[in-house]
Amino acid sequence: MTDAFEALAAHERETAAIAQVAGRLSWDQETVMPRGAAAQRGEEMAAMEGILHARRADPRLSEWLAALEAAPEALTPVAAATVRHARRAHDRAVKVPARLAAEIARVTSVSQGVWAEARAKDDFAAFAPTLGQVLALKREEGAALAQEGDVYDALLQDYEPGASAAQLSAMFDALHPRLVALIDAVRGADAPPALSGTFDESEQMRLTREVAKTFGYDMARGRIDKAVHPFSSGSGNDVRITTRTSPTDPFNCLYSTIHEVGHASYEQGIDPNYLLTPLGAGVSMGVHESQSRIYENQLGRSRAFTSWLFGQMRERFGDLGPADAEAFYRTVNRVHAGFIRTEADELQYNLHVLLRYDLERALVTRDLEVADLEEAWNARFEADFGYPVDRPSNGVLQDVHWSVGLFGYFPTYTLGNVYAGCLHDAMRAALPDLDAALAAGDLSGATGWLRDTVQRHGGLREPRETIEAATGAAPSEEPLMRYLETKFRDLYAL
Amino acid sequence: MTDAFEALAAHERETAAIAQVAGRLSWDQETVMPRGAAAQRGEEMAAMEGILHARRADPRLSEWLAALEAAPEALTPVAAATVRHARRAHDRAVKVPARLAAEIARVTSVSQGVWAEARAKDDFAAFAPTLGQVLALKREEGAALAQEGDVYDALLQDYEPGASAAQLSAMFDALHPRLVALIDAVRGADAPPALSGTFDESEQMRLTREVAKTFGYDMARGRIDKAVHPFSSGSGNDVRITTRTSPTDPFNCLYSTIHEVGHASYEQGIDPNYLLTPLGAGVSMGVHESQSRIYENQLGRSRAFTSWLFGQMRERFGDLGPADAEAFYRTVNRVHAGFIRTEADELQYNLHVLLRYDLERALVTRDLEVADLEEAWNARFEADFGYPVDRPSNGVLQDVHWSVGLFGYFPTYTLGNVYAGCLHDAMRAALPDLDAALAAGDLSGATGWLRDTVQRHGGLREPRETIEAATGAAPSEEPLMRYLETKFRDLYAL
Repeated sequence: MTDAFEALAAHERETAAIAQVAGRLSWDQETVMPRGAAAQRGEEMAAMEGILHARRADPRLSEWLAALEAAPEALTPVAAATVRHARRAHDRAVKVPARLAAEIARVTSVSQGVWAEARAKDDFAAFAPTLGQVLALKREEGAALAQEGDVYDALLQDYEPGASAAQLSAMFDALHPRLVALIDAVRGADAPPALSGTFDESEQMRLTREVAKTFGYDMARGRIDKAVHPFSSGSGNDVRITTRTSPTDPFNCLYSTIHEVGHASYEQGIDPNYLLTPLGAGVSMGVHESQSRIYENQLGRSRAFTSWLFGQMRERFGDLGPADAEAFYRTVNRVHAGFIRTEADELQYNLHVLLRYDLERALVTRDLEVADLEEAWNARFEADFGYPVDRPSNGVLQDVHWSVGLFGYFPTYTLGNVYAGCLHDAMRAALPDLDAALAAGDLSGATGWLRDTVQRHGGLREPRETIEAATGAAPSEEPLMRYLETKFRDLYAL
Repeated sequence: MTDAFEALAAHERETAAIAQVAGRLSWDQETVMPRGAAAQRGEEMAAMEGILHARRADPRLSEWLAALEAAPEALTPVAAATVRHARRAHDRAVKVPARLAAEIARVTSVSQGVWAEARAKDDFAAFAPTLGQVLALKREEGAALAQEGDVYDALLQDYEPGASAAQLSAMFDALHPRLVALIDAVRGADAPPALSGTFDESEQMRLTREVAKTFGYDMARGRIDKAVHPFSSGSGNDVRITTRTSPTDPFNCLYSTIHEVGHASYEQGIDPNYLLTPLGAGVSMGVHESQSRIYENQLGRSRAFTSWLFGQMRERFGDLGPADAEAFYRTVNRVHAGFIRTEADELQYNLHVLLRYDLERALVTRDLEVADLEEAWNARFEADFGYPVDRPSNGVLQDVHWSVGLFGYFPTYTLGNVYAGCLHDAMRAALPDLDAALAAGDLSGATGWLRDTVQRHGGLREPRETIEAATGAAPSEEPLMRYLETKFRDLYAL
């Protein structure tokens, strides 16, 4: 037993190290790679994926895992979690035929370009055949993974182990009508103005670095660069984030940074003993998003924190438009009409996600075909948001996800918000003086609580169990919905 | 036969892709890595090396190679070169016991730190035991590689395949007395002044980018960053260089860049058909250095090119000190006393290398022990240069190479200069109007000639054969020595 665990742990450690390298390569690609290197890089990435797949499919894993699973009572909690993660990765690698995995890699490496071109030309028909190919392959992969089970649930496991569509739908169906009603009410009320003027981009980056440190981001184990799309990358002692700047919208830079700092702090905060083990990375996309969202929204867009931020921004940029901290708070939380998920405000964001979740499930289960997707998107958007999609790049073509085969990913965004709502309630109960600290720009209590209750545990517990252990209750959409209703009724005097 | 070659080529292609990734990781480490990531990075690199070693030792290679080597007449020149490179890497991986390879990796990962500390404290005794360990391991490795042959020659193959100490010594022994005599004569003459004043470092970087492009560096397939030590990294379509700036010495930035552009242009210039094959990288350290040195010295420090550079620098920095282009040329080529190889001028540089070559050979062959190394270094330095070493950090502790086990690397620096001398003669014969072009800042003829005769062939020919094919003659030290004597007798009116 001990021999088997040592062999497994050594194997997993090297796999984790190689996975970190592959992740670093993606960071490089999005930040510093020369543009002429794209094709070569594709081949380098494919080689790395091949190595990782071979390691995860290694037949010796079957033996080690079988030996360890035969005596579960002998496993410490860390060993049990290690076995669980290794089993999941091994089964996945073994179940998907090599031919299918290679075909998915080949098709998705091309399809992203097809999607980008179709989006630029606002022509869904130009993307539909390729999307059809990707979908067919992902359905096949899902079927291989699901064996007798549900195909969509099988795909979901890649992003949210242990979750099921039934469980998600129960929460999302409860959210949907209340979100629509709240947004409808807000839309009838007077909206606060946006910021006006332009904001020096170097000064934005200086502020963003300060704010990142304020939220606990450890710059000795990370770095901040600019990229087209903000992201966080890496685990342990090398966790990098990117952000972007717009001269007219400093919130874009600032809240992208705070969001990514949430992801990065999770990775930086994991128990150092789990470094380069299967426990040494965030446990799921949903739990990851709970961290980025609570940093960005429940903390970063709170009345208390924005009152501190208002002072910081006035000091650096002079007059911003809003006359006082309360007006600034209203501007930060301004609800605005729009088509694009990534630009949506805190209130409307989840409605974008629920739309995609329902459509992608229908695609995977064959209740919807690609030929009918654009029409289905447009009908659902107008029903939910109250105005029609004006063009495909503002609708069905806006997100990259499906083009690269990420079916099952979207719901983790809202699941993360749901988890953030639960964590926020528990945090408020544990830290009665939180607002006073936030108003002084002191995030240490909030981030310390998250580190203790969530972040340091990494992959020790299953995703849902991670949130339960932190909050003492089963996850529910109620705290998120109550938080949104309270906040936006107050903001819009409803 | 065809099947074996296809299998071999597919295997080598993936190995080459993974080697590129490992190289990119080193670039990352020297330029952008957060300082807290060092230990984790060490483990990531070790995992990558383990993957590469396993791929090169793969027993299937023995079968494929044996099948292909059995019918050499059936191989195209490209296939024959592929087999040759794969055989070399496979034999190396198989001959060195895994235990020894791991021990070398372990010891050298620590010894670099020990060396750095000893250098900082100017204390050779603090480094000697560790160096002894490294040397013992490298001797053992050399013996494993050499089988019945010469141990030093076996180590040399890692950097200069096909070379032998006997061959190198014949050239170096011919160089040595003539270099010493020439330097002695120069030292008796009046030296031109150095530059004076300070030079804006951002402007230095702007100029360095312009000059890099002038020398043919393709920025769409590369990038220039600052690092403590200038280097070039990567092959094919992602070849990056680093440089450094000093406010008082703009030549440091400029000539470091030109040197690295020589290395990078070689990699960028290789036939795209060889991308990610064993032929798709520079064929040896010596041939590599021939490119960096001919760019830096024979071209970059020529009277013609410096007359153009003088105008560029005056435009950007105003008065530099030297009154005219001729005075500037003398300043660029100023011979100055010093202890440090990497800061040595074109004339004295090789003397530094010959010293290290003789000492490291003696260490490997047990004619010299580590305990006696400092004394041997100091005696040889004073005999060659005419003044004594003042402290270990200016002497035996100045270079990192031996601490990380690079025995056999040093001679490739002077071999590169010898090759550059041969290429320069042939280039001058082929391009009678070269000086007029250089004086106009037009490097296209020179770099075009190098691309055609050397760079595009990558690993197609053996190193020595690469130079022979480009110049039409067997390599000799005579062109280099004649070039140095002509140039410095002229400069110093001897």
